[in-house]
Amino acid sequence: NSKLKIFSLNSNQALAEEISEHAGIPLGKSSVTHFSDGEIQINIEESIRGYDVFIVQSTSQPVNENLMELLIMIDAVKRASARTVNVVIPYYGYARQDRKARSREPITAKLVANLLETAGATRVVVLDLHAPQIQGFFDILIDHLVAVPLLSDYFLNESGIDLENVIIVSPDHGGVTRARKMADRLKAPIAIIDKRRPRPNVSEVMNIVGNVEGKTAIIIDDIIDTAGTISIAASALIESGAKEVYACCTHPVLSGPAVQRINDSVIKELIITNSIALPEEKKSPKIKQLSVARLLAETIVRVHEQKSVSTLFD
Amino acid sequence: NSKLKIFSLNSNQALAEEISEHAGIPLGKSSVTHFSDGEIQINIEESIRGYDVFIVQSTSQPVNENLMELLIMIDAVKRASARTVNVVIPYYGYARQDRKARSREPITAKLVANLLETAGATRVVVLDLHAPQIQGFFDILIDHLVAVPLLSDYFLNESGIDLENVIIVSPDHGGVTRARKMADRLKAPIAIIDKRRPRPNVSEVMNIVGNVEGKTAIIIDDIIDTAGTISIAASALIESGAKEVYACCTHPVLSGPAVQRINDSVIKELIITNSIALPEEKKSPKIKQLSVARLLAETIVRVHEQKSVSTLFD
Ligand SMILES: Nc1ncnc2c1ncn2[C@@H]1O[C@H](COP(=O)(O)O)[C@@H](O)[C@H]1O
Ligand SMILES: Nc1ncnc2c1ncn2[C@@H]1O[C@H](COP(=O)(O)O)[C@@H](O)[C@H]1O
Repeated sequence: NSKLKIFSLNSNQALAEEISEHAGIPLGKSSVTHFSDGEIQINIEESIRGYDVFIVQSTSQPVNENLMELLIMIDAVKRASARTVNVVIPYYGYARQDRKARSREPITAKLVANLLETAGATRVVVLDLHAPQIQGFFDILIDHLVAVPLLSDYFLNESGIDLENVIIVSPDHGGVTRARKMADRLKAPIAIIDKRRPRPNVSEVMNIVGNVEGKTAIIIDDIIDTAGTISIAASALIESGAKEVYACCTHPVLSGPAVQRINDSVIKELIITNSIALPEEKKSPKIKQLSVARLLAETIVRVHEQKSVSTLFD
Repeated sequence: NSKLKIFSLNSNQALAEEISEHAGIPLGKSSVTHFSDGEIQINIEESIRGYDVFIVQSTSQPVNENLMELLIMIDAVKRASARTVNVVIPYYGYARQDRKARSREPITAKLVANLLETAGATRVVVLDLHAPQIQGFFDILIDHLVAVPLLSDYFLNESGIDLENVIIVSPDHGGVTRARKMADRLKAPIAIIDKRRPRPNVSEVMNIVGNVEGKTAIIIDDIIDTAGTISIAASALIESGAKEVYACCTHPVLSGPAVQRINDSVIKELIITNSIALPEEKKSPKIKQLSVARLLAETIVRVHEQKSVSTLFD
């Protein structure tokens, strides 16, 4: 792996370590500290002249801090004469602000894409963007990886559930394509949760499209944030006759009351990835974390060796 | 003031209110809140189509949060069809990272300039940049205001000191131009503090160039951050025979032990501006804050009316 360097920033150091082990090269040496007034100070402590540099950073909470760290690191890497400046963003924050839903709103997902380009990124590697259209927000190269194979393999090989009796559930209409992909791998049917508000200021009704009676339901989503929707969806599935409910997602944002809600819900197990680090206080016997390190390491090495990465995408 | 709107963000609301009073127009209505995961949500609550919009925000601590607020607001204002997007940044954070002092460092002051442009700013109004060269980091229009007249007027009209017996002191070689400008206004001589380190790992020696004996010394700086240098400089002035020492600066960063150091120092009074808001816990009987609101309001109105602002600069 000549002329390849991987650097970690502060959002997800454990994942970066794991990526470097899989890639077979030690992490590049750099320091990220703060001046007395809170300004970020970055120093790269080894030469990267002529290297393909990969910077691993999720723009998860604290999102603005993590994003600025990334932008400043990109600037430093660019000015240190790297050959290419690749950013690996397992969780792309602000992805839900991807359109003007109301007048005079920003489109922050596009702003962030522009900021990364302006700072000097030449390529981004992302995982399960909230909307695949965000790929088009970039004019630089983008590799869009998906976690469905990883999540599916867990249910196929490790979960111990009866695979003959599974139904994959999309928690909303936006997630049907993802649910369809998982259903193909598990050779299972799908159901869709059809939320609607009968009248303004009346709470949502969850209507299940598809027959879940007697089935092991697996809800799949891209992001679980406050876990409100998924907990209610799980109850609605049980009320409609499902035998048991599993849930899985790529990005465990898990903000506010999320972990408490998962613990209190009828969900038997929640499978997540480490695109966002899970702090000690959010760990729970119900939550199982799978690693995307091998997927990201393989992508990094193949990009560096100019080999196709398309087989990693489905 | 037709078709002119001023918006405040969170860094310095009191200053923005004051600016709007001087300009004679109410602040524009907008809301800045946070989603559960810490992402910033901005909404502009009145039409700004075809308006000259001015956004007031210092990128002071918490710098990354304040900078992202500003960038997202610029994006929202641009997409709401404003005619021009002007950002008023009384304190420009990251200004001290304006060159590569060591290998493989970022130049964050330039990065920030690029980010503001990319987000959609069409003009910036700044006050006492740490280095005037930072003006050249922008390809958009820039107005660079200075606080020397405001600070000088205080000493001339309000301080009660004996104006016949004053000497203006620059705390380093970089600040001599600023000290010279103040000295011209006060018709006073100048002195310069010449710091040098005799050998590596030996503490700095402060040598005073100029005769301060029996004088009222006024130290002028652009930024006072941890107040280490200024406190030591004040003692050195007293040791060299100065009768009393005042200090003044444009930007009261005042991080870490700064206020305690000022209180414990021989400095009689520290004059600052409100380019950075002074939180309650940093207030001290020794610290006096002057307002730049009138200067900024006048600049905003003149820019909007396409009148010259150059008379405001010296
Ligand atoms: N960080 C966030 N947390 C919660 N909601 C968000 C966040 N960012 C954007 N949104 C809202 O989520 C909606 C988009 O989500 P979706 O319909 O799933 O694409 C928009 O109405 C946004 O205002
Ligand atoms: N936020 C900060 N706090 C303290 N020092 C800084 C900060 N940002 C940059 N610096 C350092 O300050 C020096 C530049 O200050 P100056 O020589 O006064 O222009 C550089 O060596 C920087 O590494």
